[in-house]
Amino acid sequence: MSPAEITAYLHKNIPITAAMGVEVESSNAEGLVIKAPLEPNHNHLGTAFGGSLSAIATLAGYGLVWLALGDSKAHVVVGDGTLRFRRPVTGEIRAICRPPASQVMRHFCEEFERTGRGRLRLQATIEENGEVAVEFEGIFVARKFVKPPA
Amino acid sequence: MSPAEITAYLHKNIPITAAMGVEVESSNAEGLVIKAPLEPNHNHLGTAFGGSLSAIATLAGYGLVWLALGDSKAHVVVGDGTLRFRRPVTGEIRAICRPPASQVMRHFCEEFERTGRGRLRLQATIEENGEVAVEFEGIFVARKFVKPPA
Repeated sequence: MSPAEITAYLHKNIPITAAMGVEVESSNAEGLVIKAPLEPNHNHLGTAFGGSLSAIATLAGYGLVWLALGDSKAHVVVGDGTLRFRRPVTGEIRAICRPPASQVMRHFCEEFERTGRGRLRLQATIEENGEVAVEFEGIFVARKFVKPPA
Repeated sequence: MSPAEITAYLHKNIPITAAMGVEVESSNAEGLVIKAPLEPNHNHLGTAFGGSLSAIATLAGYGLVWLALGDSKAHVVVGDGTLRFRRPVTGEIRAICRPPASQVMRHFCEEFERTGRGRLRLQATIEENGEVAVEFEGIFVARKFVKPPA
């Protein structure tokens, strides 16, 4: 899927991402990069609202898992998450989720195929001017969609 | 401030809260209750998007701190946060932040007055049908607004 196709999928299926102005910048072997303008996401101080930062970092992790599985019907949800807000974001919000080591990702995908379930721990960061502003770590849980009996 | 006044403050100063349909249900000695409809906050599975849950839980904590200080110009931001997503939210999102023990809150407010800074650890939960769906714990940092020299 192209960045524009992933963006359209997110806007359609998770509508608050459209209100946030979320766009996928790139999706490749180096990871998934998601950005959003400050304007709809600012807080009372004119910097990025912590809730938007959290949502966009979560989305980068969620998107990376969903794309890695290559199963558009997979159910992916976030289990636990930790956030560290290190400095304010004063402009465009840019979240980067890099894939884990290839054997970790391969194990996750194999487990998902074999058992219909998988868990993956991922880190995402929000960076501005070359500095990390927010660190996110979350556990993502994937389940194969099973069609209910007719 | 009445719940309607707090809601209006949030919508004006943190505009994504208006897009999320956030409303303050109540604000009193028992805590701050914030709710939002599922519709603008649903995910690809038709349940509440983790990013919206995270944002709304954060907001309940942020609002409680801001109201407790009674200084409309105080700068309040979230430092670190942890989230535990225990079960999906399938209807209205309702986040509750209860105040800490009264001596903890008093110490925080006194420190803020004396030094111009304060830190407070708070828990918020999102509950549905009497069950906890999301647990949030965050450290909030408050700073007195100092007018820059003319």
